[in-house]
Amino acid sequence: MKDVRVVIVGLGLMGGSLAGDLKRRGACREVWGVARRGETIEEAMRRGFIDVGTCDLAQGVEQAGLIVLATPVRTILDMIPQVGALATSGCLLMDLGSTKARVVEAMKALPPHLQAVGGHPMCGKEASGLEAAEADLYQGATFVLTPLQRTSSEALMLAQELAETVGARPLLMDAERHDRLVAAVSHLPYLLSVSLVATAEEVAAEDELIWELAASGFRDTSRLAASDVTMMLDILLTNRAAVGEMVSRFAHQLNAIAHLLEAGDEEGLRSSMEQVRKRREGMFR
Amino acid sequence: MKDVRVVIVGLGLMGGSLAGDLKRRGACREVWGVARRGETIEEAMRRGFIDVGTCDLAQGVEQAGLIVLATPVRTILDMIPQVGALATSGCLLMDLGSTKARVVEAMKALPPHLQAVGGHPMCGKEASGLEAAEADLYQGATFVLTPLQRTSSEALMLAQELAETVGARPLLMDAERHDRLVAAVSHLPYLLSVSLVATAEEVAAEDELIWELAASGFRDTSRLAASDVTMMLDILLTNRAAVGEMVSRFAHQLNAIAHLLEAGDEEGLRSSMEQVRKRREGMFR
Repeated sequence: MKDVRVVIVGLGLMGGSLAGDLKRRGACREVWGVARRGETIEEAMRRGFIDVGTCDLAQGVEQAGLIVLATPVRTILDMIPQVGALATSGCLLMDLGSTKARVVEAMKALPPHLQAVGGHPMCGKEASGLEAAEADLYQGATFVLTPLQRTSSEALMLAQELAETVGARPLLMDAERHDRLVAAVSHLPYLLSVSLVATAEEVAAEDELIWELAASGFRDTSRLAASDVTMMLDILLTNRAAVGEMVSRFAHQLNAIAHLLEAGDEEGLRSSMEQVRKRREGMFR
Repeated sequence: MKDVRVVIVGLGLMGGSLAGDLKRRGACREVWGVARRGETIEEAMRRGFIDVGTCDLAQGVEQAGLIVLATPVRTILDMIPQVGALATSGCLLMDLGSTKARVVEAMKALPPHLQAVGGHPMCGKEASGLEAAEADLYQGATFVLTPLQRTSSEALMLAQELAETVGARPLLMDAERHDRLVAAVSHLPYLLSVSLVATAEEVAAEDELIWELAASGFRDTSRLAASDVTMMLDILLTNRAAVGEMVSRFAHQLNAIAHLLEAGDEEGLRSSMEQVRKRREGMFR
């Protein structure tokens, strides 16, 4: 990677943090940034995240050795063919999109002289945009890589090197498998947060005092509801079947525990709650 | 409160932290602690949380000016008549239980020479027990007080003084109203956390790799599932109707957004998500 010009398209939370980490570590020859707005380029330059910035996609990607698309998923899908027509032979195209099946599908249609691999770093926060970007965002995170059948081992190794350089742990996985698992641990939690806030809002319409009683439990459980809407909309709409499956599984679980409560089945409740508590207690240590 | 012996029954997270705060601030004449286990008393003494400790409820409460019951709700319900038979005339009996209607109901049967008021400080964390107790746990928290019709203004002022002494904001409220609102902002989030972990566990039985992909969104949304089971069981079982109502309202909200997604109704989704995001963004600043 030392000799490569890395071009990051989209300088939000994920792209901006990645650019900054690469530049700070001197991990590649040059870090370029492409953004829609001139002010974003200026801000990224000011924070020392990029060597060169441009709002012109063609100018940005033509000499790149590694291109990383770091925009919402449906923008990535739109850009893949555009970048495919612009990039130089041998260039590796990656992305940081939160769903992978549609991205990998689009990458399959790239010209054969380009390499491509899907990527999804499992980090982030509910704040979005370059102002939220920070050093070490990727530190310790799992970085899923979803190769295509045509991805060369050399290209895959470059993608792994990128992940490792910013402190993440690369994890190779099939795109469909990735999408189904993140539907359970990421997209479902978002929908629960949204529905929880909507429920509290409905009660608040009858009794405003509810917000005085919302403490740390509500704060954490509802945190994801503050996520960027365009990003989440792209995620949900490109992963509808898996998200639908997980919502339905969740509804069964909630229904089961609500029935135990309604029936006053203390032993049944205790056993379900204890099992889940034990499972959760051991995580995130 | 300066001249009062405060006796805290139950030295877990809430009771232990309260004892420690009162003692550290020299807010009352003496802080006594009552606990089931001798080791808890020893630990509370060692940490300087109490002046005197005992495992004997009768010995603990007989000379008290203010008794605070800080155990799970159903233990509070059991103790109210016991303490009522032991406490000295003019003593104020409070509690820190997470549901209030049943507690206030039990307090109504106390001998007329005792004062009583329900209390619920809106703070805590998923860790429980004395080892999790900490200074300033109550700082900035709303401290709900649910008076009985017979509660004297003097007794109510003492309860408010207690809350203010540890940095909390007293909020007077009817017990039923409290229970319904916390069902939405506290008990429902707990059930969502539990059902989320149960759903992920179900998927994990098919694909263990799911835990590699669980990041900060899952961590926060599932945090409450690690809560103490006995405490939560008491809460749920003493607030069944309100919790049932909130689960049902939530299920409607989740169902509505899942339907928009299934139908691919992008504008409907965006508008629901945007409304909730705006609401959530302004909270917890």
